[in-house]
Amino acid sequence: MYDLTHDQQARTLSLLAQTTGWARVRTLCPEVDDSTAQAILSAAGTLAETVIQPLDSVADRDGCRLTEGRVQVPAAYSAAYRAVADGGWIGIDLPESMGGSGLPIVLQAAAEPLFDRASIAFNMATGASRAAAVLLSDVAPSMVAADWVPALIAGTRTATICISEPDAGSDVGRIQTLAQNEGGIWRITGQKCWISFGDHDMTDMIGHCILARTSDMPGTRGLSLFLCPSVHNGAANGITCLRIEEKMGLHGSPTCTLEFDGAHATLLGEEGRGVPALFKMIELMRLQTGCQGLGAATRACDIAEGYAQDRLQGGPPNAPPISIARHPDVARRLLLMRSQTELLRAATLELACTMDIARRSPHPQERDNAAALSGFLLPLIKNFGAETGFEVANQGMLVLGGAGYTREWPLEQIVRDIRVAAIYEGTTGIQALDFLERRLIRDHVGFDVFSEIAAACDLDLGLFAKMAERLIACDDPERRQRAADAWFRIGWLMVTAWLSPRLAPNEARCAMLAWAERMSVHAAQISDALDPD
Amino acid sequence: MYDLTHDQQARTLSLLAQTTGWARVRTLCPEVDDSTAQAILSAAGTLAETVIQPLDSVADRDGCRLTEGRVQVPAAYSAAYRAVADGGWIGIDLPESMGGSGLPIVLQAAAEPLFDRASIAFNMATGASRAAAVLLSDVAPSMVAADWVPALIAGTRTATICISEPDAGSDVGRIQTLAQNEGGIWRITGQKCWISFGDHDMTDMIGHCILARTSDMPGTRGLSLFLCPSVHNGAANGITCLRIEEKMGLHGSPTCTLEFDGAHATLLGEEGRGVPALFKMIELMRLQTGCQGLGAATRACDIAEGYAQDRLQGGPPNAPPISIARHPDVARRLLLMRSQTELLRAATLELACTMDIARRSPHPQERDNAAALSGFLLPLIKNFGAETGFEVANQGMLVLGGAGYTREWPLEQIVRDIRVAAIYEGTTGIQALDFLERRLIRDHVGFDVFSEIAAACDLDLGLFAKMAERLIACDDPERRQRAADAWFRIGWLMVTAWLSPRLAPNEARCAMLAWAERMSVHAAQISDALDPD
Repeated sequence: MYDLTHDQQARTLSLLAQTTGWARVRTLCPEVDDSTAQAILSAAGTLAETVIQPLDSVADRDGCRLTEGRVQVPAAYSAAYRAVADGGWIGIDLPESMGGSGLPIVLQAAAEPLFDRASIAFNMATGASRAAAVLLSDVAPSMVAADWVPALIAGTRTATICISEPDAGSDVGRIQTLAQNEGGIWRITGQKCWISFGDHDMTDMIGHCILARTSDMPGTRGLSLFLCPSVHNGAANGITCLRIEEKMGLHGSPTCTLEFDGAHATLLGEEGRGVPALFKMIELMRLQTGCQGLGAATRACDIAEGYAQDRLQGGPPNAPPISIARHPDVARRLLLMRSQTELLRAATLELACTMDIARRSPHPQERDNAAALSGFLLPLIKNFGAETGFEVANQGMLVLGGAGYTREWPLEQIVRDIRVAAIYEGTTGIQALDFLERRLIRDHVGFDVFSEIAAACDLDLGLFAKMAERLIACDDPERRQRAADAWFRIGWLMVTAWLSPRLAPNEARCAMLAWAERMSVHAAQISDALDPD
Repeated sequence: MYDLTHDQQARTLSLLAQTTGWARVRTLCPEVDDSTAQAILSAAGTLAETVIQPLDSVADRDGCRLTEGRVQVPAAYSAAYRAVADGGWIGIDLPESMGGSGLPIVLQAAAEPLFDRASIAFNMATGASRAAAVLLSDVAPSMVAADWVPALIAGTRTATICISEPDAGSDVGRIQTLAQNEGGIWRITGQKCWISFGDHDMTDMIGHCILARTSDMPGTRGLSLFLCPSVHNGAANGITCLRIEEKMGLHGSPTCTLEFDGAHATLLGEEGRGVPALFKMIELMRLQTGCQGLGAATRACDIAEGYAQDRLQGGPPNAPPISIARHPDVARRLLLMRSQTELLRAATLELACTMDIARRSPHPQERDNAAALSGFLLPLIKNFGAETGFEVANQGMLVLGGAGYTREWPLEQIVRDIRVAAIYEGTTGIQALDFLERRLIRDHVGFDVFSEIAAACDLDLGLFAKMAERLIACDDPERRQRAADAWFRIGWLMVTAWLSPRLAPNEARCAMLAWAERMSVHAAQISDALDPD
């Protein structure tokens, strides 16, 4: 009973109706309206509950296996993946000419947390394939796109993103994997790690979107992007899965180390422009991370609220025990969990609409502003989505007490699964640096656009503007970067102030509780970092 | 190399030298001095590193098994438990007349985090047995004490604490397990759950310190305390382990549900006074929880600091990569982890000395004040020990990135193991209520003693005193209890202000960063709870 997603669908629709960008998206996509959203959420909820959620705890227990260089995922995955593809979920925002539905990203982002709520691990396969399909439809040579995008959408192939290597994690510029051009044919040699669904037995072919070095130009300028299929001309393409990681959670998502031994590949986009090209895919995966946090948080709220209603404890000793939801500290905790969750929901919807406007607006200025705003919001939603999911799941465990620490309830799995969300697709530290260095110091259009919106909403911009000014004025990168985390948290507090009026009054009040004081905490941290003496 | 405990020993000695109560403890125990402390820490470090730590990851993987009603713990436990007992660690603070060493609690609390650092799970057996020995030496009939205490100290028997039942967790007053007196013989019938090491195969006999109902008096007044041995007159005593919990972590510590079916038992203390009698044991176990957090945090700091030194990433792309410890955000995170850890260490040492003074002072007023102060500090150290351990381990995972999420590093296990520390021995919510209702509203001697100490240290007491006044003045328990968590956090911030001058200057500075602003956050939360309109 706690697992029903009806409440989640209703909350999503209610917040969507208040999402500023949604009105604009509907004018840009006249075929889409509120009833489209309702139908999509309802279908996603059904699929999530009936097909995906039943896999989740089984996959956690059984995990994935590596046998003779090939990965076996849980047996039920193949049929489930087929159901996801048949439902049109992989191609939801891809062009109809490629087999997609041509819908806005926001409808995907609205549906995604229903799937993530059901199983973050299983849904990792869909996420990478969908993001790759978008990338390929954009940058792949047209014959390659025509071959791959419909197959990814149909679920007969999947895709991965291959960036990290043992000696090049966050420091992408140190990638060593080589792509060599031999008579017009690119071949890739090297090792990539942390590849989610880098191998599996759900489909016959996997396409790896891989960054490899094509020149000695230092840093990322020597890197190019390739599509490297697991099968080439009907034969294995020299790619071996060396191992799968034993992880704290996400056991149902195989994390592979892949060895590429002269594997044939297709160049995507221009040589030396691999990182910028790949960012289209990375951005979608970062949005997905925010949605994963939202799915985890929503499920944790639902479980904790249900448990607290049903669990009878306390009250006067000579009267029957009362529902623990009536204990003041439990009620406070449940409200805090819910308000953090719904704030995140409002934020993912606004971000996704902003990405739609950046894609679809006919006006260059509107497109540019939307792109800048989405660049400003993305690290925030990626990281605070991850943090919210983890925190809310942990708070939920406290509501359940000892029961929450056992495998009889899904909370402990949610905590283990969502823990990685603040690590992959760029850790908290990396996102904070991105938010500071790229989105404020190097180019502050996104900051300016956000500031205008915030001013129009009558938000208190004083401390936000003042801190930005001080960070921009600081010419010591070491000191500035010590302030990155605090600045990042100020950014999320500003988003909180912007979006909390959309929540139910008690949730909004909770989200804004001690807001000014929390701003002051981070302002003090920034001051200390900039002027430590 | 990261695992050596030398640094931990040195830090403990350095903080002990600054612990106010330590000077007083040495005058109360003239046979104890700094060299005693040094010798004990060195011996504990050796045992922890050579005997206990090697068990930890094996126990996590293999766990415990329930076969035909009996629990098997990892095979290596028996010899290790023997080594712990032979080293004198179980009886360290018990009277020499009972086979103990008669040392102050603070030396136990100084050594304990070395064992917890090595393996929280294994060390759970020691903790309950030691606390039970203290309880029994105090309240058991002398023949029972003479039989049990030396056996517990010698490690030939272990003990448990049995409180919770399926329908009586935090709400102890609803305990249903019955103790019936049949012709002078007490027999216990009922079910108890969440019993750590409730059964195992390390020793032949287990003594359960169990709360059971002896009258219909409502709430805790109908409860009495018993010792219920697993073996009675050479035969099994009607106690069956129904199951062991499958948990998120602490797999090496079997969490049992026990069925008592007319088991023979000995009354400990007076009828109807079970809960107050048991508090002596509960207090030691709450101190242990703080130490567990400290052990976990220390290990996480050591691992993260070592990894960050060794891991080379980033820096100018055309120069060799640099140690990530030099990246400003990583350096900031490492310092934050360390400062939280050392603050906790200072707090556990001061609390343990306060408990010693409460036990040993010849002056009733000094004893009473120390008992009140330790009552004030105990919920803080229990909970913020648990929170610090969890938070520092999670921060450490971020330093390691993806590697930290895998089982190749112990961080993910530390996170899973220490997660329960904020749940068992009273959840965060229960500790916060205790801190508010028992330590401020009902009896504020501990608060007054702490306030005097804080004033003597020239701390800013303004907001602390003002919030206390407002909470005391509030006659609506519902509103007041909504403020419990915020008041609890203000308490920990006051402890932070009190003890941070003992840390290294950079750690102290980090611990106090934005202190006034953080106080204001919680003051605003209290104001909102008390005056929501």
